[in-house]
Amino acid sequence: MSENCNACIRFIGYVIENDGNKAKIAIFNEYLEGLRRITDFSHLIILYWFHMRDNKKDRSTILVHPRGDPSKPLVGVFASRSPCRPNPVGLCVCRLLDIRGDCIIVEGLDAFVDSPIIDIKPYIPRIDSVPSAKIPDWLK
Amino acid sequence: MSENCNACIRFIGYVIENDGNKAKIAIFNEYLEGLRRITDFSHLIILYWFHMRDNKKDRSTILVHPRGDPSKPLVGVFASRSPCRPNPVGLCVCRLLDIRGDCIIVEGLDAFVDSPIIDIKPYIPRIDSVPSAKIPDWLK
Repeated sequence: MSENCNACIRFIGYVIENDGNKAKIAIFNEYLEGLRRITDFSHLIILYWFHMRDNKKDRSTILVHPRGDPSKPLVGVFASRSPCRPNPVGLCVCRLLDIRGDCIIVEGLDAFVDSPIIDIKPYIPRIDSVPSAKIPDWLK
Repeated sequence: MSENCNACIRFIGYVIENDGNKAKIAIFNEYLEGLRRITDFSHLIILYWFHMRDNKKDRSTILVHPRGDPSKPLVGVFASRSPCRPNPVGLCVCRLLDIRGDCIIVEGLDAFVDSPIIDIKPYIPRIDSVPSAKIPDWLK
C-alpha cells in the first residue's frame, strides 16, 4: 500500500445493472459462499465504493452544501451523505429481492453501474432501526 | 498499494475510550471541520475498522457460526455481522451525545478502544430505518 494508506480494501463485486428501482450486483466467485442464508433477511446494508470520487480533490473535501444547493448551510462531510469524503464509502439500506446465480437483486441501491461493492451486512432492526432519530430542518 | 488492494482507506480518528455504554472518539485535526453541524443530528452511523481482524486468516473467512455458537447454522459472512470478513469494516448506529474539543461522545458503539474510524454519516430515518425488516429465527 502507498505510504498514505492505512488499510486496504478489496472489492467483492460490482453493480452491473441499476434502473433506479431494482439493481443487480455481481459477486466475485471467491466470495459467493458468503451469501449463504442471506435470503433469511429481508433487508441488507450495502457498502460500496464511490469510485468516481476516489481522487485527491474529492477525498480532500471537508465542507459541502447539502445536495449541492448553495442556499443551504455549509456543513461538514460527516454531517452529510455526500460522495465526496475522505473515504468514499457509500451506504444504502436495500430490500433483498432475489439471488440469481452469482448476482444479488436489490431494491433501493443509490449506486451507479460499475460501482464496486465492499461489504454486505444483514439489516437487524433492533440495532439498525431508529425511526425517531432527529434530522435538521435544512435536510427536510 | 499492494497488488492485492483495490482501494485505500485513511483513518480519520480512533476510539480512545469505551465503557460499553459511552464511547469517546478522537478525530484527527485535518478532519475536524468535517464535524460542522453534526450536532443537528441525534444519531450517527459510525464506520470503523476491525483492526484486530485485519489479517489474512480472518479476511479469508467466508462462513461463520452466528455469535460463534456451533449449535447455530453455518452462514455466509454477508449474512452475519461477524468482524471476520473480507473487508473488516464495522458499522454501528449510535446516539450522538456531545462534541468536546476534538472528540465525539456517542452511545452504543460496539468497538474496542484503539479501533480506527473510517467514516461518520448522519442517520436519516427516511432511508436508514426499516423497523419491519425481517430477521431469521436463528438470530433471535
